Amino acid sequence: MNGAHALIRTLVDGGVDVCFTNPGTSEMHFVAAVDDIAEMRTVLCLFEGVATGAADGFARMADRPAATLLHLGPGMANGMANLHNARRARVPMINIVGDHATYHKQYDAPLESDIDAAAGTFSFVERPLRTADLAGAAASAIARATRPPYEIATLVLPADVSWGEDAEPAVVPPPAPGATVTDDEIAQVAKALGSGEPCLLLLGGRANREGPLRDASRIVAATGAKMLTEVFPTRLTRGAGVPAIERLQYLAEFAEMQLQGTKHLILVDAVSPVSFFAYPGKASDLLPDGCEVHVLATAASEAGDALARLAERVAAGVDPVLAPADRPGRPSGPLTGETVAQAVGALLPEGAVVVDEAATSGLWAGGATAGAPKHDWLTLTGGAIGIGLPLSVGAAVAAPDRPVINLQADGSAMYTIQALWTMAREGLDVTTVLFNNRSYAILNMELQRVGARVGPKALDMLDLSRPDLSFVSLAQGMGVDAVAVSTAEDFTAALERSLREPGPHLIEAVL
Amino acid sequence: MNGAHALIRTLVDGGVDVCFTNPGTSEMHFVAAVDDIAEMRTVLCLFEGVATGAADGFARMADRPAATLLHLGPGMANGMANLHNARRARVPMINIVGDHATYHKQYDAPLESDIDAAAGTFSFVERPLRTADLAGAAASAIARATRPPYEIATLVLPADVSWGEDAEPAVVPPPAPGATVTDDEIAQVAKALGSGEPCLLLLGGRANREGPLRDASRIVAATGAKMLTEVFPTRLTRGAGVPAIERLQYLAEFAEMQLQGTKHLILVDAVSPVSFFAYPGKASDLLPDGCEVHVLATAASEAGDALARLAERVAAGVDPVLAPADRPGRPSGPLTGETVAQAVGALLPEGAVVVDEAATSGLWAGGATAGAPKHDWLTLTGGAIGIGLPLSVGAAVAAPDRPVINLQADGSAMYTIQALWTMAREGLDVTTVLFNNRSYAILNMELQRVGARVGPKALDMLDLSRPDLSFVSLAQGMGVDAVAVSTAEDFTAALERSLREPGPHLIEAVL
Repeated sequence: MNGAHALIRTLVDGGVDVCFTNPGTSEMHFVAAVDDIAEMRTVLCLFEGVATGAADGFARMADRPAATLLHLGPGMANGMANLHNARRARVPMINIVGDHATYHKQYDAPLESDIDAAAGTFSFVERPLRTADLAGAAASAIARATRPPYEIATLVLPADVSWGEDAEPAVVPPPAPGATVTDDEIAQVAKALGSGEPCLLLLGGRANREGPLRDASRIVAATGAKMLTEVFPTRLTRGAGVPAIERLQYLAEFAEMQLQGTKHLILVDAVSPVSFFAYPGKASDLLPDGCEVHVLATAASEAGDALARLAERVAAGVDPVLAPADRPGRPSGPLTGETVAQAVGALLPEGAVVVDEAATSGLWAGGATAGAPKHDWLTLTGGAIGIGLPLSVGAAVAAPDRPVINLQADGSAMYTIQALWTMAREGLDVTTVLFNNRSYAILNMELQRVGARVGPKALDMLDLSRPDLSFVSLAQGMGVDAVAVSTAEDFTAALERSLREPGPHLIEAVL
Repeated sequence: MNGAHALIRTLVDGGVDVCFTNPGTSEMHFVAAVDDIAEMRTVLCLFEGVATGAADGFARMADRPAATLLHLGPGMANGMANLHNARRARVPMINIVGDHATYHKQYDAPLESDIDAAAGTFSFVERPLRTADLAGAAASAIARATRPPYEIATLVLPADVSWGEDAEPAVVPPPAPGATVTDDEIAQVAKALGSGEPCLLLLGGRANREGPLRDASRIVAATGAKMLTEVFPTRLTRGAGVPAIERLQYLAEFAEMQLQGTKHLILVDAVSPVSFFAYPGKASDLLPDGCEVHVLATAASEAGDALARLAERVAAGVDPVLAPADRPGRPSGPLTGETVAQAVGALLPEGAVVVDEAATSGLWAGGATAGAPKHDWLTLTGGAIGIGLPLSVGAAVAAPDRPVINLQADGSAMYTIQALWTMAREGLDVTTVLFNNRSYAILNMELQRVGARVGPKALDMLDLSRPDLSFVSLAQGMGVDAVAVSTAEDFTAALERSLREPGPHLIEAVL
């Protein structure tokens, strides 16, 4: 078999059986080979940022990596913003980047560029130079990517390495566990929790799932500590029957209030809080003066195990505090961020996946869904906008039986709007709630916060009107059913219909 | 004044007075400062690949750089594919990338990434660390970017360097000329031309403008040499009254036929021909056996001056051969790549700018317009598809009195479709001829050429139907007037109307 066949067989045997693709000439042998390996599902994307964001969403919901297939350096560059987000999400991914044949690189053909330098900014890089080494490189990439701290592997695939013959698949070792937290480390955290001083557990990564959240809640109940999750969790399980956890606030002013008075900050696969951006005259490091930081688990640790053992030690016999079932009523009146949130809270189905890139319009969504049936919440982890639609694609591919609801800001949507076509092609059960407020509203706020004087040319650069975007037209142009609504009643009816009918829908909420 | 003010004043005084923007929080002081400097025009783009492709198009038509304003590493990454194309086009550009404040970088906030490593793949990088150094860094970036070989400068702009006070603008020195080709070098090329052996002039860069083409044509007429231009010229002046020059073919098989028998290849701001991609069993280097390469001018040379002096030496008194005025008639019947090309040839206005990213559908366009009134032809220089619409934006901003006609393939259009919104907002006189053949047709050809076996899953990855894209809906959703046509008569009428009316239009040619 040729290199491409051995690679795909290795991927599939190693549990990587979905590939989000946007190929070109140098990837044609990979493209041809998928027909011989039935287990590999390929999902075509019209832009690489869709492919990489979808692979991220897949990994968040499946807890295993998807592959991407990208075309040389420029194709990878188009996917880099969402690869950045995936790196910050600490999810595994096998990012396959086709390259010129090894002997062709010396000619500096038009598509030649330094793939390795760019890939090194978000991933580790494997570049097999012989067909015989390709499957082994893939196997070791999968093994490393799927072990805590979970990484992105970029597997550079030279065309001749792909088309060369006499290749054999390689065996992928089962994923290694993360580092075990020692009893001493747990004892030190337990000591802090027993100090009588204000303690705060900050949870991140996979500690935001139901099991670890229950253990964290038991610790909180037993010791009087507080708990928070990251500003932008990769995947947070929440809703009725799950312990409620507040998110650290995006705005540093509010985050400082949440952290105020803390004497012991206990990090569980999370990092010490810093401001998202710098602002003139304001602190970057949000840690209160005199606060001691304890690392219970790093991203490379078995955080869930550590929390469970800590709970056994400090909260034996104590039950977690679970969120009660509690939904808002169906809203009426004008359509606002708040009434949209109420409708989502009123209708959110059991097991839904909420993809949240609503920015300023999403302020009320968390509160309105806190008592809805159990669901998962995915967010923009790395600050690179344009992830919501692709993340929804990947989540829906990973979890076809779970409805996906994408709360989506207008400005952000336009970065990767091409994702709608893949939703239509694959018949994915995604409801996109598109908040059309006709501005980069968050930047209007930030323009004030940085203390800059504001004139008409500046405001013009934050304005999405002139012309107004019609997301209904955009969606229909890509084969997605769409409707625009401007009252709470109409929005609720549209959401109800969308959740009842299979396949993708877009609801343009004109605010 | 603060750093941002000093920077913008330096840019404007240095001839950089258009900025294609997609800013975020770290760029807010730059955004605020533009209101105080009336000469700086800002053009908002909804995606960074539009901004960078537009800056390329601007530079091609204005022969001076535009600036971009991008948001940290991920924002730059979104613009990288078209920055790659601009590097291959050898155009100047001032790529301004906002970054975290210098003191904030240590905290590894979510948007932190290695900007310099990625920027180094397509540009030289200036990173001023103090407000006092910002304007000077900008001035030296402009000076270097605007001198042959024409480069992209990435000016990294830390937020605190931007907002810091007590800055002063810097003076930008006038652009330095390129290296002068010596009389000896010209004499050596003249000797080859006089050898009686088959000679071929290969022109690139700014040697594709009218003046150098006339000199090249004189040389050809006097010596019996042939001349060709690059496969993908940055900007080729052509049409009635301009010497006609054939392009080196994209397909290596055909390029080899064009080069066959050449004994002396004379490079004028061009590189020796290589295959665009590698193919199993085929050569990468297209130079015929025994062919000697002579470099008349590199990209760093004054190529036009060298050609003029060479012409004086070997073709004194000889006139260039100019293309005659000759238009096809208005086409009728089914709409095909060929009848679209006829209509364009029949109607192309004097001074038009043709932006060609038509891929397989554009095969006939060059021939049908060879005798149309004088115009410029811009192409995809680096192979990273998704440049046509952005390039058209930039060309139209640079040359508001010249109609822009974008011959645009469907698959490529979807990478940077957001450009349509900027065309509408700025009222740009761009006619987008959208060839909708519902496939990545070029990849169907490439799949055969690489010798891979073809199955249904492979074909599915090259197919843009299921669902069909409606570019009329997409354009209308972004405020651009659009119509779909399926006969040659209807296409011709739509093109005529579009050329008569100001502002952007899209004609979806359903093939």
